[in-house]
Amino acid sequence: MERVVRHFQEELEALQERLLAMGGLAEERVREAVRCVTDRDRTALEVLLAGDQPINDLHMEIDDRCFKLLALHQPMAADLRVIVAAVKINTDLERVGDLAVNIGEAAGRYLVHPPVKPLIDIPRMGELAQRMLRDALDAFVRRDVPLAEAVLVEDDTLDALKTQIFRELLTYMLQDPSTVEPALDLILISRHLERIGDHATNVAEDVIFMVSARDVRHQGGDTPHDDT
Amino acid sequence: MERVVRHFQEELEALQERLLAMGGLAEERVREAVRCVTDRDRTALEVLLAGDQPINDLHMEIDDRCFKLLALHQPMAADLRVIVAAVKINTDLERVGDLAVNIGEAAGRYLVHPPVKPLIDIPRMGELAQRMLRDALDAFVRRDVPLAEAVLVEDDTLDALKTQIFRELLTYMLQDPSTVEPALDLILISRHLERIGDHATNVAEDVIFMVSARDVRHQGGDTPHDDT
Repeated sequence: MERVVRHFQEELEALQERLLAMGGLAEERVREAVRCVTDRDRTALEVLLAGDQPINDLHMEIDDRCFKLLALHQPMAADLRVIVAAVKINTDLERVGDLAVNIGEAAGRYLVHPPVKPLIDIPRMGELAQRMLRDALDAFVRRDVPLAEAVLVEDDTLDALKTQIFRELLTYMLQDPSTVEPALDLILISRHLERIGDHATNVAEDVIFMVSARDVRHQGGDTPHDDT
Repeated sequence: MERVVRHFQEELEALQERLLAMGGLAEERVREAVRCVTDRDRTALEVLLAGDQPINDLHMEIDDRCFKLLALHQPMAADLRVIVAAVKINTDLERVGDLAVNIGEAAGRYLVHPPVKPLIDIPRMGELAQRMLRDALDAFVRRDVPLAEAVLVEDDTLDALKTQIFRELLTYMLQDPSTVEPALDLILISRHLERIGDHATNVAEDVIFMVSARDVRHQGGDTPHDDT
């Protein structure tokens, strides 16, 4: 029996290690997607767009690990919460990988046009979204509820940046029709980054539930993020 | 023991019944959000925007049911796949509810302006997204893999409509700056509808995995949907 328990703990640690690897990969792809926009790097962009497979492979591997842990070990209480959280976090990280590709696709169209303006807020959003992802996963590994709660707060900053970008680009579009197409793609990029922040927020909420069995979702007359 | 088994089956059926109720609610809110846009119904829009709580309550209730089924009954194989699928489907349906609110928010801004054009493709997208949701959930209840596979095919139509809407509205924006703001909101609405289709697709993929233990995700050099 002790051997089974030890085996279970090893498998649970391997699961968390793989989730961290996936998080690192997702974060790296977001960083690279935003860098392709700011550096106008079309060569790197093609590499980025072709490189979705490793994260998709990890997604299926992690799902499989969760399923096997549930099926073979029938974990109780705290361990069960970790595995259910892992199932959800895995889904969120896979979507982050998709969003990095979506950013890359918008970047491909954006880079056909001359720059609309110097990009300041888009890289800020990118850095913030990456940090939120990293913090949410650190919170998962360390069972760190205050760190997870900090991620929820950072999401408001990300939303505010998205709104600011939208308003600024709208003024360009209204003044000069030649900016409509590239400005649209920058707006889409900012929205993809905001959604990455939403996924980091989901992870943080799962961590809080996992650690404290406290459901922080849908509190305070919760509505989805203001969609400006 | 038999009593425990029967109790488990009853609980599993109750879980599916609640998931269906949540799906119905999500679908109804998508329908109403699109109707508010096409009928320019600002009164109904306020009701819609204030009514997110029932779906959020169901989200937490269903999560709780899944967790208890896993913790108390330690299900194996097929039943385990149903419950893990339910955890994921629940998340997707909650996001659909959020997206209905996002559509409503964009509608609130859109209705401040005179109509850009008669809306034809947006209601078509709405109907298609609703049907995909309904079919995906029917496929879940009936364990109907062909129906789930049909949902995956319908998603391509939804993406094509989104691209068509984008291109058409772009021509309006380029010709007449006064259409930039309302056209942007129509583009956002079409993208929210496309994401609802993505969630229906996720549900369909979960159904296929649940029934056949076959993972159809990330097949054929899968990349995220073309992000035009």
